[in-house]
Amino acid sequence: MTETKDVNLDFEREERTGLAEAVFCEGKSDHQLKTICEKVVKEARPMLFTRLSIEQFEILDDSQPAVLDYDAVSGTAFHLSSGSDYKVPIAVVTGGSSDLPVAREASRTLAFYGYDVFEVHDVGVAGLWRITERLDELKACKITICVAGMDAALSTVLGGLIPGVLIAVPTSVGYGMAKGGETALRSLLVSCAPGITVTNIDNGYGAACAAIRILNTFTEPGSEDS
Amino acid sequence: MTETKDVNLDFEREERTGLAEAVFCEGKSDHQLKTICEKVVKEARPMLFTRLSIEQFEILDDSQPAVLDYDAVSGTAFHLSSGSDYKVPIAVVTGGSSDLPVAREASRTLAFYGYDVFEVHDVGVAGLWRITERLDELKACKITICVAGMDAALSTVLGGLIPGVLIAVPTSVGYGMAKGGETALRSLLVSCAPGITVTNIDNGYGAACAAIRILNTFTEPGSEDS
Amino acid sequence: MTETKDVNLDFEREERTGLAEAVFCEGKSDHQLKTICEKVVKEARPMLFTRLSIEQFEILDDSQPAVLDYDAVSGTAFHLSSGSDYKVPIAVVTGGSSDLPVAREASRTLAFYGYDVFEVHDVGVAGLWRITERLDELKACKITICVAGMDAALSTVLGGLIPGVLIAVPTSVGYGMAKGGETALRSLLVSCAPGITVTNIDNGYGAACAAIRILNTFTEPGSEDS
Amino acid sequence: MTETKDVNLDFEREERTGLAEAVFCEGKSDHQLKTICEKVVKEARPMLFTRLSIEQFEILDDSQPAVLDYDAVSGTAFHLSSGSDYKVPIAVVTGGSSDLPVAREASRTLAFYGYDVFEVHDVGVAGLWRITERLDELKACKITICVAGMDAALSTVLGGLIPGVLIAVPTSVGYGMAKGGETALRSLLVSCAPGITVTNIDNGYGAACAAIRILNTFTEPGSEDS
Amino acid sequence: MTETKDVNLDFEREERTGLAEAVFCEGKSDHQLKTICEKVVKEARPMLFTRLSIEQFEILDDSQPAVLDYDAVSGTAFHLSSGSDYKVPIAVVTGGSSDLPVAREASRTLAFYGYDVFEVHDVGVAGLWRITERLDELKACKITICVAGMDAALSTVLGGLIPGVLIAVPTSVGYGMAKGGETALRSLLVSCAPGITVTNIDNGYGAACAAIRILNTFTEPGSEDS
Amino acid sequence: MTETKDVNLDFEREERTGLAEAVFCEGKSDHQLKTICEKVVKEARPMLFTRLSIEQFEILDDSQPAVLDYDAVSGTAFHLSSGSDYKVPIAVVTGGSSDLPVAREASRTLAFYGYDVFEVHDVGVAGLWRITERLDELKACKITICVAGMDAALSTVLGGLIPGVLIAVPTSVGYGMAKGGETALRSLLVSCAPGITVTNIDNGYGAACAAIRILNTFTEPGSEDS
Amino acid sequence: MTETKDVNLDFEREERTGLAEAVFCEGKSDHQLKTICEKVVKEARPMLFTRLSIEQFEILDDSQPAVLDYDAVSGTAFHLSSGSDYKVPIAVVTGGSSDLPVAREASRTLAFYGYDVFEVHDVGVAGLWRITERLDELKACKITICVAGMDAALSTVLGGLIPGVLIAVPTSVGYGMAKGGETALRSLLVSCAPGITVTNIDNGYGAACAAIRILNTFTEPGSEDS
Amino acid sequence: MTETKDVNLDFEREERTGLAEAVFCEGKSDHQLKTICEKVVKEARPMLFTRLSIEQFEILDDSQPAVLDYDAVSGTAFHLSSGSDYKVPIAVVTGGSSDLPVAREASRTLAFYGYDVFEVHDVGVAGLWRITERLDELKACKITICVAGMDAALSTVLGGLIPGVLIAVPTSVGYGMAKGGETALRSLLVSCAPGITVTNIDNGYGAACAAIRILNTFTEPGSEDS
Repeated sequence: MTETKDVNLDFEREERTGLAEAVFCEGKSDHQLKTICEKVVKEARPMLFTRLSIEQFEILDDSQPAVLDYDAVSGTAFHLSSGSDYKVPIAVVTGGSSDLPVAREASRTLAFYGYDVFEVHDVGVAGLWRITERLDELKACKITICVAGMDAALSTVLGGLIPGVLIAVPTSVGYGMAKGGETALRSLLVSCAPGITVTNIDNGYGAACAAIRILNTFTEPGSEDS
Repeated sequence: MTETKDVNLDFEREERTGLAEAVFCEGKSDHQLKTICEKVVKEARPMLFTRLSIEQFEILDDSQPAVLDYDAVSGTAFHLSSGSDYKVPIAVVTGGSSDLPVAREASRTLAFYGYDVFEVHDVGVAGLWRITERLDELKACKITICVAGMDAALSTVLGGLIPGVLIAVPTSVGYGMAKGGETALRSLLVSCAPGITVTNIDNGYGAACAAIRILNTFTEPGSEDS
Repeated sequence: MTETKDVNLDFEREERTGLAEAVFCEGKSDHQLKTICEKVVKEARPMLFTRLSIEQFEILDDSQPAVLDYDAVSGTAFHLSSGSDYKVPIAVVTGGSSDLPVAREASRTLAFYGYDVFEVHDVGVAGLWRITERLDELKACKITICVAGMDAALSTVLGGLIPGVLIAVPTSVGYGMAKGGETALRSLLVSCAPGITVTNIDNGYGAACAAIRILNTFTEPGSEDS
Repeated sequence: MTETKDVNLDFEREERTGLAEAVFCEGKSDHQLKTICEKVVKEARPMLFTRLSIEQFEILDDSQPAVLDYDAVSGTAFHLSSGSDYKVPIAVVTGGSSDLPVAREASRTLAFYGYDVFEVHDVGVAGLWRITERLDELKACKITICVAGMDAALSTVLGGLIPGVLIAVPTSVGYGMAKGGETALRSLLVSCAPGITVTNIDNGYGAACAAIRILNTFTEPGSEDS
Repeated sequence: MTETKDVNLDFEREERTGLAEAVFCEGKSDHQLKTICEKVVKEARPMLFTRLSIEQFEILDDSQPAVLDYDAVSGTAFHLSSGSDYKVPIAVVTGGSSDLPVAREASRTLAFYGYDVFEVHDVGVAGLWRITERLDELKACKITICVAGMDAALSTVLGGLIPGVLIAVPTSVGYGMAKGGETALRSLLVSCAPGITVTNIDNGYGAACAAIRILNTFTEPGSEDS
Repeated sequence: MTETKDVNLDFEREERTGLAEAVFCEGKSDHQLKTICEKVVKEARPMLFTRLSIEQFEILDDSQPAVLDYDAVSGTAFHLSSGSDYKVPIAVVTGGSSDLPVAREASRTLAFYGYDVFEVHDVGVAGLWRITERLDELKACKITICVAGMDAALSTVLGGLIPGVLIAVPTSVGYGMAKGGETALRSLLVSCAPGITVTNIDNGYGAACAAIRILNTFTEPGSEDS
Repeated sequence: MTETKDVNLDFEREERTGLAEAVFCEGKSDHQLKTICEKVVKEARPMLFTRLSIEQFEILDDSQPAVLDYDAVSGTAFHLSSGSDYKVPIAVVTGGSSDLPVAREASRTLAFYGYDVFEVHDVGVAGLWRITERLDELKACKITICVAGMDAALSTVLGGLIPGVLIAVPTSVGYGMAKGGETALRSLLVSCAPGITVTNIDNGYGAACAAIRILNTFTEPGSEDS
Repeated sequence: MTETKDVNLDFEREERTGLAEAVFCEGKSDHQLKTICEKVVKEARPMLFTRLSIEQFEILDDSQPAVLDYDAVSGTAFHLSSGSDYKVPIAVVTGGSSDLPVAREASRTLAFYGYDVFEVHDVGVAGLWRITERLDELKACKITICVAGMDAALSTVLGGLIPGVLIAVPTSVGYGMAKGGETALRSLLVSCAPGITVTNIDNGYGAACAAIRILNTFTEPGSEDS
């Protein structure tokens, strides 16, 4: 068998699309992860790792100590985050406290690209006052990423209240007919509030990437607002 | 082949359960419907017909003129509705104007049993003010039947705002991932607002029957309120 | 990243809807559960915890000994249950002995709100005499919560026999085409017995909440019957 | 293109399995049906046609008048039914009157093979007395074919009451979550009553064939009982 | 809470239906299993236990040594099997060697009721000679239970070759689109061979019960053949 | 029955969210459509009608001639489109020529709000040169709406090639396992190209609304570019 | 709106892949079809049209008489089929006579590319002799396309008997759990016979294309055999 | 119970179909695997084992040391691979590095039959240059097996670029709506690139078998090319 290298990083992607490749770690072998990590360290390239379990992180951290900035809630790690400091108001909102890991993946991805977001948690619409008392803050945001499971009704309600961009992330929170997030996803796709777009279940990273496409296209780095 | 009669009405059901049998007309042959209609007229029994198409109604009305009180929007017909006049505040609420036929089936069924409901239409939560401006009326209702398709977010929002009984009916309104009402149904089942119960898709009749079980059990006929 | 508190309890919910917020513990981190528990103890607020595993309970019990009344079968814990003693006949019925945890979640939730229920177990309709010999007791109940998995035929049979309110809870009991309770759920939604309403799979808590909405709306605390 | 004949009847099947081939007419072209009909008439072979629409029958009847014995309710036609007259008590039972076409397909298939069945209609378990008042007759049957849609609870109840063979046919009767008979089918497969076997949705013909396999194997033609 | 006993055995079932209740052990607590076991031992009743894991068996065997006859392959245990010795040729056939546990559950259930079956294994139709070389034996059987996963094509082929009763059990063997046995089940339901009936996935017990209904109805105990 | 008006337009929505309510015409009765049309004409409000069939349009055009600007391909009609003329490069791209109606719904919605888009058709990736020869134009676009059915691979390929905002609309084009667009939708949700967001199947209107949220938030009306 | 041509034929595809683009006509407007037809006639290019209904064909034939060679069974039309005459033994086999249109689509596509196939019809495995009596012919074929619906067991049986290439096409023939061909498709994917590959439901054209890829790659035009 | 041997190897299969039986090890008991292994060693037969876990391999290797050539990435083991050395250019291509185990199963199966393949990894189309820079190599291949999960768009793109045989294997890589590979599978089935055929999810073995059918049919062993 003629074998070729089995990891093939796309370092030119950022140039083409403004989005660097990230390493999705779930399902990768320890050997593959260490190969990738050595390469990015050696070449001093910024790199975002997602779905990196604590066990996987510790293996990387053992072999190359202290090169990764790890966050256990979201399972994300940064190598050489650019750390620039854009000034665009962006919110990440959750329906319940169990949605936190997905929401944090979104805000960590935005942080990796230099955007500072504020997070608003546990404001599901069963207690409508929780969202209405934060409404002025959210109306001022240019982009809101709404992270919710179960019936995901929060996005529909927000969609009727705020004028900014609204990206919805269904989560796998819930049991029975929640069906691992598929009910939340479907509800978002048929939402009666117009102009909401949707990502895969639990895909906080993807929602942040969609936000970055907008920011790259419509804002200037370092400008006050847009 | 030894054949037996193929229609077998359960006239004793009301005695056992407080709910008379109704005739679900979809899929019944004209012959079967006429046999049933002749029987109830001859025995002077009150009877509710549901899912009776205009074509089916006209066949019955031709063979026995003017014995049925027909409503085309809901496809319901009454034979000898009791017409008593209970005084319990009950609401039937819709998310959009396309939910009207299902909502009307619920209010017609309640009317057949002598309850007068008020209908509130087109108050989907994408325009939240539409529901909040009716909130005082709805808070005063003892039972609210909430009829909505698509993401059915209206029931979740109502469930966090009103203290009364809340019965949710998903409708087949919508396209694509609405999947004939299944998305609305699933959203209702996993709603983050507690104490909502659910019926089959488009089953306005069933929601009304659930309300009647409550009313039969907990209220006295003719009493002012409960 | 500007972070905000990630647990946001809705203490005003009871005022609005008659149903206090409960804490759904599955998927919550130990840190989140301890934060909640400290808060409710400090503020002396009654609180119901559901889906609390024995491991989670022991962590809470270690940090704050003896403040929670825990039931291992249902995975529920009470902090300061009101313990009032309403006199309304309510039944929780199961099809098989494997449905017990879900049924107990329903009766514990009702107990938390001060209602005493009686449980009737293992009366699935494959042995019809088991339900018919309990029929007089069940006919006298104002509300029956019917908990069954597999084909959930028990609810349909009960629905044709008893006049009171009937709330059906499908369970995830069964294998193969039981599909984690989805078959039971669908059967209940299309039941040929009228006036049955349905909750999510395994949602004993939700069925109890639906019962409490009815009781709050139609009965007076402390009255003999309704 | 080298073409071969596109209809290829399996006249030897009866010899091998005791079941002659039947012609399933749905989706066959008029040309194909006429070719088959001419062939069986010419060779004087008994043949059963199923799912033969009234339009299809009329085309066949025009080209070869009066050779087929047609039943419009079930859409079946006989050519030269054996008409022997076995004496085995067999019942075909329906949950509702809309299940009649499927039930009739079963009893017509049995009639084609010389068995006389009795039909019991509209005995769904929402009115349990309807089935219990027929129970002695059904207990005396050696084989019962139970035809029901929606939740198909009738089969489960019968399965706990009668000792004979029980073959269940789910029907596509119902709407919403009945999902064209799939809910009835699933319920039957997970029924808590043991020893029920199941056929495809609306497959009255298949249930009759299963009965005939039993009768061919365990009974003698012309014997009084078995 | 007024609690009642949570295990409610249906000892009269055999009288009504010819099938004694069996104890399905999956999902039952150790406490429930011990209660049942004590009861049947004390009352000296025959009882079949299915889906009894080795761990569960050891707990029962520790508390009441040597009262159960356990088979680890099928997870079945007998208490006081009748052991009568009927002479009816019955086969249990598998497509592949992974179908063995389900097939053995069927043959053990038949053995519990006194029937001796012969098993034919690993005769899937990808090697058609494997089934044709056993064909004479199978043609002589009055009942064949066919146990197969994946595409379950074995049942269709058998259905066209043998005249006896054919009960098909789909198994959860396979991966990907085998979907836990659902593909096998669907294939069996739409099989082009007539007169096959089907049970739930992996339900060897149910297939045996269906066979026993036939045997109880059509054969005399102790007779040579039928 | 106390009835209320069954059409309840949300004219304030534009103020809150920047998106005026549109009228989704599928499933509305002629009476409802005429009521709406009269109201918007009388109040001289701009209004977009979607999914307006040619039959429905003719009824409206008969009752109020020449007030609506109708496009038959997309089934959209304008009343008083603002017609302002923003200068932002926006593309609507299709995989095949059957995707045209959905794509046109998107470009008509953008036109209603004053945006001029260019459409690029029939560039599915089975002929990759078709998309690469248009690549420079598409790279210059700030927003691309990609409309494709079947496997919707076009969006993934575009997502790796262009830096701008990418909103993907799955269409119901295709047969068999295309399953009315659900396969296209799922493929888009799990696309390996990052930062794509997705709408409901065939929802060209929704994709345009998402674009308008971005444009409203990040661009100034009348500015040259952004 | 800047519009571009909405039909964009890929005439270079054949050069790249050996497969010319075909025109899938279902869902195309008459205008689109006429544009395409005029273009291919004017440029004298060979073209295959699939899923061309008789109504669509007549419109094309009216506007450009006698340029298309149409086959009504398969809904295919040729413009300038190459008509070369390769000598490779290829079979198209069907399970039942209702599978004919899909099978014919495959053999017509092969004919368009100059291959002559022989068709073997109605040889489903419920009558195993029908396939075994044709076995020698099929063993001699280099490629067999097997077209079957329902349980599609024919492909599995063939896969264990013949050594040549086997491409399986599931069809939408069947009712109930046949689910429009999805059961046949799934069965084929999990077939216990190795080396079968599968196409979309009813995709006779795709199976022929797969055969042509093999023939283009491994055979010489005009050679006797391969 | 009359028991027969439960493992029944089909050693004649290779003679009939050119494909020896392989042993699928997942779900087989240690006892069954050891029986098979002893048999093939004793009879000195070549045998391929697939889905053999490291734990299973170690049990076999302990009982019969060093008779199996094991590869841990793919879970395959060879006993007496023929090792002949055919000269046909064959490629196995992956979309991402997580697809490696499935791809390796395909190339190991081909190696067992004496074919040397080259593997090209991690060339998913989100970075289109990765596939285009390998295009000349792939165009020269007679057979390409394309292994990809998520949206599997790589196969569609390849299908439009290369003329050789293209067999696509969907993998279970991905999360959320990837649904264990079902989305990749469906996308491949409806791919807009013609002539692609598909195997079950993760079925690298099956794809290799399909290739071997082609190679057996169209090439001569030992010939240079075909």
